[in-house]
Amino acid sequence: MSNENTQRLVVVGGDAAGMSAASQAKRRNPDLDVVVLEQGDFISYAACGMPYMISGAVAESDSLLVLKPETARKRRGLDVRMRHRVLGIDVKRKVVQFEDLEQGRNDELPYGSCVVATGAVPIVPSVPGVNLDGVMTLRSFESGLVIRKAMADHVPKRSVVVGSGLVGLEMAEALTSLGSAVTILKRTGDAILGLYPELAEVVAEELARNGCTLLMKTALEGLEGTDRVEMVLGGGEVIPADFVLLAVGVQPASDLAREAGMTLGVKGAIAVDEHMETSAAGVFAAGDCVDQVHGVSGEKVFVPQALSANRQGRVAGANAGFVVAGSSNRLTNPPVYSTFVTKVFGLEVARTGLTMADAQRVGLDAGIMAIKASSRAHYYPGSAPLHVAVLYEKGTGRLLGAQMVGSDGVAKRIDTFVTALSAGMDLEAVSRLDLAYAPPFAPVWDPVLVAVNVAKKRV
Amino acid sequence: MSNENTQRLVVVGGDAAGMSAASQAKRRNPDLDVVVLEQGDFISYAACGMPYMISGAVAESDSLLVLKPETARKRRGLDVRMRHRVLGIDVKRKVVQFEDLEQGRNDELPYGSCVVATGAVPIVPSVPGVNLDGVMTLRSFESGLVIRKAMADHVPKRSVVVGSGLVGLEMAEALTSLGSAVTILKRTGDAILGLYPELAEVVAEELARNGCTLLMKTALEGLEGTDRVEMVLGGGEVIPADFVLLAVGVQPASDLAREAGMTLGVKGAIAVDEHMETSAAGVFAAGDCVDQVHGVSGEKVFVPQALSANRQGRVAGANAGFVVAGSSNRLTNPPVYSTFVTKVFGLEVARTGLTMADAQRVGLDAGIMAIKASSRAHYYPGSAPLHVAVLYEKGTGRLLGAQMVGSDGVAKRIDTFVTALSAGMDLEAVSRLDLAYAPPFAPVWDPVLVAVNVAKKRV
Repeated sequence: MSNENTQRLVVVGGDAAGMSAASQAKRRNPDLDVVVLEQGDFISYAACGMPYMISGAVAESDSLLVLKPETARKRRGLDVRMRHRVLGIDVKRKVVQFEDLEQGRNDELPYGSCVVATGAVPIVPSVPGVNLDGVMTLRSFESGLVIRKAMADHVPKRSVVVGSGLVGLEMAEALTSLGSAVTILKRTGDAILGLYPELAEVVAEELARNGCTLLMKTALEGLEGTDRVEMVLGGGEVIPADFVLLAVGVQPASDLAREAGMTLGVKGAIAVDEHMETSAAGVFAAGDCVDQVHGVSGEKVFVPQALSANRQGRVAGANAGFVVAGSSNRLTNPPVYSTFVTKVFGLEVARTGLTMADAQRVGLDAGIMAIKASSRAHYYPGSAPLHVAVLYEKGTGRLLGAQMVGSDGVAKRIDTFVTALSAGMDLEAVSRLDLAYAPPFAPVWDPVLVAVNVAKKRV
Repeated sequence: MSNENTQRLVVVGGDAAGMSAASQAKRRNPDLDVVVLEQGDFISYAACGMPYMISGAVAESDSLLVLKPETARKRRGLDVRMRHRVLGIDVKRKVVQFEDLEQGRNDELPYGSCVVATGAVPIVPSVPGVNLDGVMTLRSFESGLVIRKAMADHVPKRSVVVGSGLVGLEMAEALTSLGSAVTILKRTGDAILGLYPELAEVVAEELARNGCTLLMKTALEGLEGTDRVEMVLGGGEVIPADFVLLAVGVQPASDLAREAGMTLGVKGAIAVDEHMETSAAGVFAAGDCVDQVHGVSGEKVFVPQALSANRQGRVAGANAGFVVAGSSNRLTNPPVYSTFVTKVFGLEVARTGLTMADAQRVGLDAGIMAIKASSRAHYYPGSAPLHVAVLYEKGTGRLLGAQMVGSDGVAKRIDTFVTALSAGMDLEAVSRLDLAYAPPFAPVWDPVLVAVNVAKKRV
């Protein structure tokens, strides 16, 4: 097994980025020996679907498994090895060292090129009691199954969600829909999801209307209970709880890369170039463990997201395959725009580009304009308020970001702004777009146009 | 009244374009005397909402009146004169001649600048029987009220809709929902709404599933009946009908402009420059009576649409005001992309940019790629098939157009393509977009990305 094998690509980690890399490399170069080492029991699961699997909105947990190991082996010709934990990457010898957890033996595998796709892990606050029963994080598919099982056995009467990011809010909804009374702890006093205050207020109201208690400026201080969690201490309060979800964010799983001598970047993510190559020649990285370039600010950012992971995986896999084939071709990975959309009960909440805080941090003189319009023609049934905020550079009018909140027609409307940001448009250019109109879907002047028309008067 | 008055703007026609022009001019220059001459009883009505008013989906017909004459007078300071029919524009003397239909007298009004916003009129096929009772067109608000009233009095057992454009299809749905059995006559054998055959088939199936009979290659030959229509003759068939809607398209109402010596352009529309100025200095035109530049082909086109009309009105009004004020400022009107979206029963149908026929006509070597994807994550409830077709230039990969059909998430997704077209993006650039993802709203790879990813392999 230790023979030099330059015709081999070793992929470390079998989730979205890793499997995209492996599949892409094999598709482009069928002769390549592609080995995927995955420490867990699952590959390629739809992490973003887990809150809906837990709530029961998605009935079959298996439907979140995008690709099963057997399928990857038979249909894609990938040598997927489950329960293989990578211990180290020797970038000089070009060898990956691993432990076969099933057989309990260590071995190593030489590579011609390598893709590191180790993902991210939940941040666990350094407070007492995080190991009590009933205190969980949601990240791996296993963690999703554990929470789903726990809810099936016994719906907690009172839940506390620590953190008000996407996972925190989506889980607050899931827990509420199961019948649990949910309290959300938000450490800072900043507006929720980085939204402009007017829009954040709409989200806060929706949480309240659905019975969730949102405690602002409430840092988690500790968890108490005998064996099982009973109380959450935060902001001087004692909050009874029989279930606690820690959702304060993730950090890149970059220990392996660091130990192998690769350069780490922002927030400890693995630094990669536009080809997804790390500082170690022939070693690529992709997914939630890497840093990326922000398309608006040009900064390196850590924005772990599903589409990026898949896209980076393809680029890393293709380029890793080119290295093995001795080709000088290289695919490039596009910048990210920190786009997100999420469902908060009856609301759709979306954002792209910079927030005001981002703009200030990178020294841009930014203005913001928020408007309230209608999602459809005012007279058409189902028309609902739609809030739009646009962030622009003063003086030039360059579009820097956008945010939307509403119960109708938000989700894919944000993509208009994503596309405009990618094209480097200013407010004037956006205001000239020939956007689609029909009474069931938009007013004549789409809320996007209304927002930029108002904003451009302030430039 | 015949005194020279260079501080006056006369607007001919009080619908969307005319009232936008009048309002914009007055807002920018409150001292301006803005006179609107409208021959009918209504101004600024939501024409696109009429099928929904007729079906009853919109309960109050008045809710379609965006602006009432009294409001325009009091709140906007506009001198709106109803039932004033313009007889001629003397561009040398700078005078508009009109008939006051109420008083039965003719008079004239001098202008400093003028905006012609005469709109479009339905094309009435030159066949026998079009004047029979029960044969109607839908265009003016009056015509909408007449049809609504007719339906309230007696829902026709069998209706025939002549034409399968947006109005034809929307009215087919309205009539069906009222309980009428609808037959649609389509003159040509081309795919419906200019869609790629695969997508057109989905629309045809939806019509059939909802009980509409679509007769292709069936030209209207005549209408028969005693007083009231009883039979429609077309394609050698005799189709019984107690109501017939003629919806074969519109033509610009440009007689007044032509008689005044203004240059007409494509399809008889009033030729305007990017400032919406006609060939007569100081006379602007806007709305469904003018030609426009297509953003993809650069051709002059006749695409009468609500957003364009409103936007052109603003540009024409602002520029007409500048003329009066002696300013050299000029706003420019953006090109159009022939974007549309419509609801066909449970389907959303959208298109932007060129069709294959358009591309061939202007000599572009175009390819088209159609895919079928899902509107949401495959496992998320409510996910539905979403068909996307992209038209691109062979060799360069430049995006030329896009089409979408599906029951979920189509309407505002098309705007991503609209924005990409405006930015002159190629398939590669679109494939790099950081589009929004969350399971309730999209798959990780949005159908837009899937379509361009597949298409770019064929460039």
